Amino acid sequence: MKRKITFQPDNVTVTVDDNTNLFKAVKSAGVYVLSSCGGKGNCGKCKVIIKDGTVEPGKSQSYLSQEEIGRGYVLACHSHAKSDLVVEIPPESRMQAKHKIATGAKTEELLRLMKEAGGCLESRTSRICLELSPPTIDDNIADYERVRRGLDQAGFDAAHLHMNYLVLSKLPNVLREGKWKITISFFNVGSVLEVLDIYPGDATKTRYGAAVDIGTTTIVVYLVDMANGHLIGTASTYNSQVKCGDDVITRIVYATERNGLRELQDLAVSNINTLLADLAEKNSVPPGMIDYIVIAGNTTMEHLFYGINPEYIREEPYIPAATFFPLIRGKSVGFQLDPQAMVYSMPNVASYVGGDITAGVLVSQIHKQEAVSLFIDIGTNGEIVLGNKDWLVTAACSAGPCFEGSGIKFGMRAMEGAIEEVEIDPKTYEVNYRVIGDVKPIGICGSGMIDILAEMYLCGVIDQKGKIREEIGSKRIRRGESGLEFVLAWRIESAINKEIVITEVDLDNLIRAKAAIYAGFATLLSQMGMGFTDIEKLYIAGGFGRYIDVERAITIGMLPDLPVEKFQFLGNTSIMGAYYALLCDRLRHEAEEIGRRMTYMELSVSRSFMDEYMSALFLPHTDLHAFPTVIRELEERKKG
Amino acid sequence: MKRKITFQPDNVTVTVDDNTNLFKAVKSAGVYVLSSCGGKGNCGKCKVIIKDGTVEPGKSQSYLSQEEIGRGYVLACHSHAKSDLVVEIPPESRMQAKHKIATGAKTEELLRLMKEAGGCLESRTSRICLELSPPTIDDNIADYERVRRGLDQAGFDAAHLHMNYLVLSKLPNVLREGKWKITISFFNVGSVLEVLDIYPGDATKTRYGAAVDIGTTTIVVYLVDMANGHLIGTASTYNSQVKCGDDVITRIVYATERNGLRELQDLAVSNINTLLADLAEKNSVPPGMIDYIVIAGNTTMEHLFYGINPEYIREEPYIPAATFFPLIRGKSVGFQLDPQAMVYSMPNVASYVGGDITAGVLVSQIHKQEAVSLFIDIGTNGEIVLGNKDWLVTAACSAGPCFEGSGIKFGMRAMEGAIEEVEIDPKTYEVNYRVIGDVKPIGICGSGMIDILAEMYLCGVIDQKGKIREEIGSKRIRRGESGLEFVLAWRIESAINKEIVITEVDLDNLIRAKAAIYAGFATLLSQMGMGFTDIEKLYIAGGFGRYIDVERAITIGMLPDLPVEKFQFLGNTSIMGAYYALLCDRLRHEAEEIGRRMTYMELSVSRSFMDEYMSALFLPHTDLHAFPTVIRELEERKKG
Repeated sequence: MKRKITFQPDNVTVTVDDNTNLFKAVKSAGVYVLSSCGGKGNCGKCKVIIKDGTVEPGKSQSYLSQEEIGRGYVLACHSHAKSDLVVEIPPESRMQAKHKIATGAKTEELLRLMKEAGGCLESRTSRICLELSPPTIDDNIADYERVRRGLDQAGFDAAHLHMNYLVLSKLPNVLREGKWKITISFFNVGSVLEVLDIYPGDATKTRYGAAVDIGTTTIVVYLVDMANGHLIGTASTYNSQVKCGDDVITRIVYATERNGLRELQDLAVSNINTLLADLAEKNSVPPGMIDYIVIAGNTTMEHLFYGINPEYIREEPYIPAATFFPLIRGKSVGFQLDPQAMVYSMPNVASYVGGDITAGVLVSQIHKQEAVSLFIDIGTNGEIVLGNKDWLVTAACSAGPCFEGSGIKFGMRAMEGAIEEVEIDPKTYEVNYRVIGDVKPIGICGSGMIDILAEMYLCGVIDQKGKIREEIGSKRIRRGESGLEFVLAWRIESAINKEIVITEVDLDNLIRAKAAIYAGFATLLSQMGMGFTDIEKLYIAGGFGRYIDVERAITIGMLPDLPVEKFQFLGNTSIMGAYYALLCDRLRHEAEEIGRRMTYMELSVSRSFMDEYMSALFLPHTDLHAFPTVIRELEERKKG
Repeated sequence: MKRKITFQPDNVTVTVDDNTNLFKAVKSAGVYVLSSCGGKGNCGKCKVIIKDGTVEPGKSQSYLSQEEIGRGYVLACHSHAKSDLVVEIPPESRMQAKHKIATGAKTEELLRLMKEAGGCLESRTSRICLELSPPTIDDNIADYERVRRGLDQAGFDAAHLHMNYLVLSKLPNVLREGKWKITISFFNVGSVLEVLDIYPGDATKTRYGAAVDIGTTTIVVYLVDMANGHLIGTASTYNSQVKCGDDVITRIVYATERNGLRELQDLAVSNINTLLADLAEKNSVPPGMIDYIVIAGNTTMEHLFYGINPEYIREEPYIPAATFFPLIRGKSVGFQLDPQAMVYSMPNVASYVGGDITAGVLVSQIHKQEAVSLFIDIGTNGEIVLGNKDWLVTAACSAGPCFEGSGIKFGMRAMEGAIEEVEIDPKTYEVNYRVIGDVKPIGICGSGMIDILAEMYLCGVIDQKGKIREEIGSKRIRRGESGLEFVLAWRIESAINKEIVITEVDLDNLIRAKAAIYAGFATLLSQMGMGFTDIEKLYIAGGFGRYIDVERAITIGMLPDLPVEKFQFLGNTSIMGAYYALLCDRLRHEAEEIGRRMTYMELSVSRSFMDEYMSALFLPHTDLHAFPTVIRELEERKKG
């Protein structure tokens, strides 16, 4: 028996079998619904409202408030259709159109930084236009030999030319269509001059490249004019793999299931295809003109991109299939706009330190400095690099994706409707917040969470362990379904017709995450016999990093208590490093050198890390003396 | 409206639309019917008998005798179904199961010849078995890095290792399945060590290669043990492309039509797949164990094999897309048994001198000798090479496929039922013939045609121009539908219930073909300022060549009148050269060197060739003094 399900507000209808799981139905309808666990039934995020019809709600209720149940909420992943349905995806479960991934890149800035890093416009790709003499009965060499002769005469080393049979199969027609004038795009692979593609006539003026950052959460694309390095356009989107799981671990699990690997690969590739196609169309870039694509992503993202089994990344002793991936043609993974383009991915270091981090170090330039610096990329994971021109050590501190909304009751990414800044009045406990897009709030994003934790601690709403101090007697403190919680926004203030709260469970998760990051710093330093005072600079990379209030992050003990001037935000160094490698082959080599030089520490099995982590499970830290600024701040608040 | 057509004797039924062309119906049924023109309607070969039902026979009748028409014969390509049909494919239109393609190769002989040619067992492929230590938390490098380290420790140059992403994607599972014991197959490409495939455990004992000769008419495969060069098995089949046309020109025309190129490619690949699969099964060779395949074929066959447009081979100035083709993986063209195998094709020289000829020269060794030799490959085309260690010139004399049966009324290939030897009594004109398989004849193959021409000429049944001398008054001479003809086998003697005759049109075609070959020899020699007396050896290659009676071929003026000891039959040098190149990379290089050294002459536009050709349109030649042996033979017959 068939059931019709209509999803609102998108107004998309699908026909499914009776008893079909609603999460599967949403996916088959191509409609977005929030989910952190990929439909496994344990994150409680995929809330939908049954407006009409009957469902078997399964265990939905254990994840919902009485009020939500009363309003028709169920979890899509636990529910099965028992009749035709009209299902609303409520605002808090929707993909938001506007979000705050600032690409905001400027050509001048990028080129200046690249130059400062020792780069120049010397890519592995080039194009040449040849005007050949047409064949005659006395000059009847093969088409391919004619091209080689032409290249030889133009000063190229035609002896090392390689044209694959698919390009070769086009050669006779392209030569004749162009009336013996032909453009050849090349790619240097070691000593071999690989022909990427051929074009009739002169196509040397329209050669492009793309830098791509495949983040666990977000995918960013730069479309670049290879002739001058100019940014033609930038675009970004959420990584559609998010629906299969919020973090790399759930995606690896998903990948090991039937066809999951292929599905994840297709999702990322399809995101990139869409972004590139849009950019090309907007900027009148014809198809076939992108010669080179450089990908940066963490190790799991790169495995998924190539369709390579990431299973053993997850299991001790945490082994990736590869850290350096071979060059491929775009068509191998399904790039549509430019199937002939060569695709390179930034080198990885280990299972949890990937190409996004070698790209980041390349941009930070810590590997060339005399002084010792720390580098951290706060994304879905938290990767740290410590070192200087002589040595580099690195680790991942598995902070988890809670700063991106996962595991936090009202957690969400930094997009419209997210509370991004919070102040709490230390006397009245009244809350002031700012919402992205200046709209009514629907949730809390990472920077908001840091603020909340810092403010609640400084105002004494929570203790050093993150427990809510019920005894202060605020009406904002109440007992909810998962214990004590603090109301940030009252029902009438919110866009979702319910209170936005932070629970003790949320606070616990946040403290674990910040503790992991701090413990990562501390462990790397102690391994090298150093302390925080030995650090010259602390570079913060990552889209989320950019919006962190450093002082607040110090207050909660996520960042070490260093002078503010020692912190420097670098922005999305993953895409910037990919851009460098795209345009300058010397910097691409340098990134590989960085990848080889870095020594990876596996923190998950490190006793020293566990000790540091346990000590950091307090606000700001068990050792309060390591945070003199916070002591001062607490004292000032007391006075105030 | 639908029609059912049943083809006898195969008893295959297809359902087609009303008015469907019978030739298309035969093809869609997968049944073989003889055709030289690929269904263009002008060769008159695709004779079938309508046993039941009605067809619109079109212009069939102009190609058929009154008697054939009376017996229900039509040409499939001209006929359209007007009802359900039962159609018989008569014996003369069928593919014959038994044929006389002698592969008859012996390992000892091949290895001895290869050694004499300076070869040895040094292929581009190799395999190594590595026993790696399993990863631990302290030794947690990536799987691929572990393999590189293992290779490095085993003395390989792992820095130049290249593993493509498809092999890489299998690596994690293969390593764990083999419990960290793994076999890697390699291929040397310049300085790069390309990984062909990986296997769990030790698979070094089972590595194979294949040499493949893609002839216009016949495909031959050798399956070879790469460890010792032993022939595991040989197999051959007719090239299924034959149904799209007998010769390269009709196939090129076919290839330029909608999807024709792809169809021709698939036909050849599918032939090779079948042969390889049969050989592998018979010899218990598991899938995935063929590492290297070397193809030899003429330039058009190689274009079709790669799916590369051969259109401009056919049009003046006769330009191939390439003469050297890039290495590909088996899967690129659709090899099923060993998609990972590397495929190399022997280098071509020009549009009408292909990889089969560079292979042939490699086997003949004329390129290393002091003395000047001639080499001829008499296949569907007729390619000639003249030269020694200092120079090599080559040409194709477009003899056409008439010695393989095309354009000859009762012409057929050398298979069961073909008249292969003929004697005519000079007094009674009675005919003695020998038939392949000692059965009743159904047609005449190439060696039989040469005999007929020689015997008819020596007995005075035809004159120097090949015209039948009606005046001699034999009952075997009669006037048929295309002029005078000579009866070779009476109706009761034949297997097809009709007389087997040779017509003046046939004789004319044969004389043109032999004249083209002789004129080719003469033109190349005169271009080099030489004559036949300067020739030390004349090597005859080609499956057909093996069965030529040299003296008879001299009688008709196809071969020059040299002492018999100067002729040497080499057999199928195309497959032998491929076998050499498969096993010995030095000889593969030598073949490329041969390809580069050969100077190609385009005879079709050569005035000198036209003159030589006109002079050779007599039996044996306008200049009888060039054939003293024939003068003696004629005199002896007169005496006798």
